Amino acid sequence: MKRTKVAELLQGTALGQDVLLKGWVRTKRGNKFVNFIAVNDGSTINTIQVVADVQQFNEESLKDITTGACIAVTGTLVESQGKGQSVEIQAKNIEVLGLADVETYPLQKKGHSLEFLREIAHLRPRTNTFGAVFRIRHAMSYAVHKFFNDKGFFYVQTPIITGSDAEGAGQMFRVTTLDVANPPKTETGEIDFTQDFFGKSTNLTVSGQLEGEVAAMALGEIYTFGPTFRAENSNTTRHLAEFWMIEPEMAFSDLTDNMDLAEEFLKYLVMYALNNCKDDLQFLNDMYDKELLNRLNFVVTNSFERLEYTQAVEILKTAKQKFEFPVEWGTDLQSEHERYLVEKHFKKPVILTNYPKHIKAFYMKQNEDGKTVRAMDVLFPGIGEIIGGSQREENYEKLSARIKEMGIHEEELWWYLELRKFGTAPHAGFGLGFERLILFITGMGNIRDVIPFPRFPKSAEF
Amino acid sequence: MKRTKVAELLQGTALGQDVLLKGWVRTKRGNKFVNFIAVNDGSTINTIQVVADVQQFNEESLKDITTGACIAVTGTLVESQGKGQSVEIQAKNIEVLGLADVETYPLQKKGHSLEFLREIAHLRPRTNTFGAVFRIRHAMSYAVHKFFNDKGFFYVQTPIITGSDAEGAGQMFRVTTLDVANPPKTETGEIDFTQDFFGKSTNLTVSGQLEGEVAAMALGEIYTFGPTFRAENSNTTRHLAEFWMIEPEMAFSDLTDNMDLAEEFLKYLVMYALNNCKDDLQFLNDMYDKELLNRLNFVVTNSFERLEYTQAVEILKTAKQKFEFPVEWGTDLQSEHERYLVEKHFKKPVILTNYPKHIKAFYMKQNEDGKTVRAMDVLFPGIGEIIGGSQREENYEKLSARIKEMGIHEEELWWYLELRKFGTAPHAGFGLGFERLILFITGMGNIRDVIPFPRFPKSAEF
Repeated sequence: MKRTKVAELLQGTALGQDVLLKGWVRTKRGNKFVNFIAVNDGSTINTIQVVADVQQFNEESLKDITTGACIAVTGTLVESQGKGQSVEIQAKNIEVLGLADVETYPLQKKGHSLEFLREIAHLRPRTNTFGAVFRIRHAMSYAVHKFFNDKGFFYVQTPIITGSDAEGAGQMFRVTTLDVANPPKTETGEIDFTQDFFGKSTNLTVSGQLEGEVAAMALGEIYTFGPTFRAENSNTTRHLAEFWMIEPEMAFSDLTDNMDLAEEFLKYLVMYALNNCKDDLQFLNDMYDKELLNRLNFVVTNSFERLEYTQAVEILKTAKQKFEFPVEWGTDLQSEHERYLVEKHFKKPVILTNYPKHIKAFYMKQNEDGKTVRAMDVLFPGIGEIIGGSQREENYEKLSARIKEMGIHEEELWWYLELRKFGTAPHAGFGLGFERLILFITGMGNIRDVIPFPRFPKSAEF
Repeated sequence: MKRTKVAELLQGTALGQDVLLKGWVRTKRGNKFVNFIAVNDGSTINTIQVVADVQQFNEESLKDITTGACIAVTGTLVESQGKGQSVEIQAKNIEVLGLADVETYPLQKKGHSLEFLREIAHLRPRTNTFGAVFRIRHAMSYAVHKFFNDKGFFYVQTPIITGSDAEGAGQMFRVTTLDVANPPKTETGEIDFTQDFFGKSTNLTVSGQLEGEVAAMALGEIYTFGPTFRAENSNTTRHLAEFWMIEPEMAFSDLTDNMDLAEEFLKYLVMYALNNCKDDLQFLNDMYDKELLNRLNFVVTNSFERLEYTQAVEILKTAKQKFEFPVEWGTDLQSEHERYLVEKHFKKPVILTNYPKHIKAFYMKQNEDGKTVRAMDVLFPGIGEIIGGSQREENYEKLSARIKEMGIHEEELWWYLELRKFGTAPHAGFGLGFERLILFITGMGNIRDVIPFPRFPKSAEF
């Protein structure tokens, strides 16, 4: 017999039929006549109840059915007499595939702290919480691809190893095959990177945007979805050294198109989660954050507030709230400012535009005022910045001048500049930090809990 | 007016209406009365013809419309009088968004070698060939996600940076933030990796399988799709230092289930390409490989031949063909052997199983004969090995003994071993090299031409 997943069994379409269930024991309870075994197989947060007649099975064999054990059950799917489930399996045969020793298996019935579960990241997907988070993570990944595919965007896998250090988004990890204990040296005593694997110094990418622009200037509308890296010593609940990013890039688009896409995209993702992850979201709402579903529904039903950085600074300067960091035109906004705008002032997601150019990247399109660039940040409740983007500078002379002004090695960007030399066009795009999105959708508080194996300072376990 | 993509314009539904076209000029021809401009915007391999009345536009303005220039055209979509297209745009207004200097723009009308185009990877997506390859690459990426999502598999992003060097699939790149010119040393004079970013020596992953197994033993059926790395000095048409891999992993599955999934998956992908990439495949078939479509159709309509390694060795030993490398039971098969089996002997895809254990990885399930493991390789015409997989050893003692026997650091794999300690279950999975798949689907001859920015020894440009 072929096994049927729990998610399908619970739909009850096989009622009255013999079925084969395989999964892990969550709990076992009962008396000397009957045992009730709750089994989960990861297909859903819900368990199915297996009813085992103690007389039929010898008591000895039921002993091995402990929390965490893996079992295969054949039996009849019947309507449940008990509360909390509509169907259950009346067991005919139970085979223990894998034991879980009661003394040593860490996931016994009692609740565990998220901190403790982080130490056993190889087992935490077996808990209700992490099962829910990782199923939602899957659903969001799929929704990303479906959204863009349906719109005619092409997925581009941009390189992870880069010879450029000009991406400008943060500190980088070196990638090397040189013997660090005894690296080859040049005549002048410097490391001889011509002998490294790629014949030069290489790093892990901080963004696929620049290569994404290459693709957009040929295929029209594209997106990336891949891992990016920051070698920053940030031990916060919102930063990872390795995280996934989604970066759409659109030829023939301006800042308004970009804002429209960002808002449509985020609403689509939230709606997809609401429609496809009901049970998992309900669990997280009940267990962690009673406002989660309200907040998700709020995002899909309200327009994002759009205003300029300059207007936001005015609002913040006249705010009654005291801020730790003072706000003046030209300063970068801190998390406290972003959250004030979103959570207190507008009480909805906010898109800020036209930031001062000196706090933004070299590639952003310069406004006529000479002071600002066509940047946009999307700010979300609880999260702060969830998307950062801009219209790109498509004018060769302006871009080249800005690169020089900022002291970036222009020769590394020859290919990027050539996009402006040959058939240039207005274009725009943004980056969405995937784990920030998952934080928002799940309501979890720590970014280390929404990625299967988090990488952060002093930690690359598993 | 909103722009309409060429793919949509060519469907002709807007016939008789005014439209806005934006894209890049492929060719311009004509006479003193009328100009015909072929425009492509990346949405399809096809161009749309723009007809410009020379009298209406002054000749001077039409001069800038050269190959590679970016233009915006408003005009009426009309039935075409000429051959080769059903509709065309009668231009009312043409704006040049970006020039492309005839003297310096590298992609003039004449054909270019694939080697030359590799040097200008930032412009090659604008050619017919690479536009086709990258649109197909997108379609295959999407099909991978759709296939698994529809089957209830969950996508898991496994880590890129790993503290383990026990993955066993090849040489690794070091990831570090230490100052290579002056690294910290321990008292005994060795590099002090406790001062590195992650507090220990770290590398780029060669496979997400081990972490994928973690997820499968909780969520049931999962897959990975991400970049993997090999620091091997392989300058071949089939190897990259950075490539993408898809690795499904299924709890409660054996080698037969694994073969079934692999065959169904590959046929699904080929069928998806045939249904969704008709124009691009036809182009590649006509220009590069007249057998391409035949080969693709052949794969979806024929069962893969399944046989054991031992049987394959017998066939090869009695083959009339002379091989460069002799075959004996226990030797790893070379590309020439694999291709003989697929292309000459069976004339269809082949799945080989039950390889000698000493030529396969430590995690494969050991057969009762004590000599072989439940491995499988899927061999494809022209490509050789496209998929490698196995049932995994789920028995703690056997796995632990094999790890010791092979001299692998068991302490690095504590978490992997614990999967066998707590609720173990039979499980199986495989890896599909995504670029090998794209080679097969597109018929291209060099793996450097099926990834946007290839990484190989001495090359990490762009």
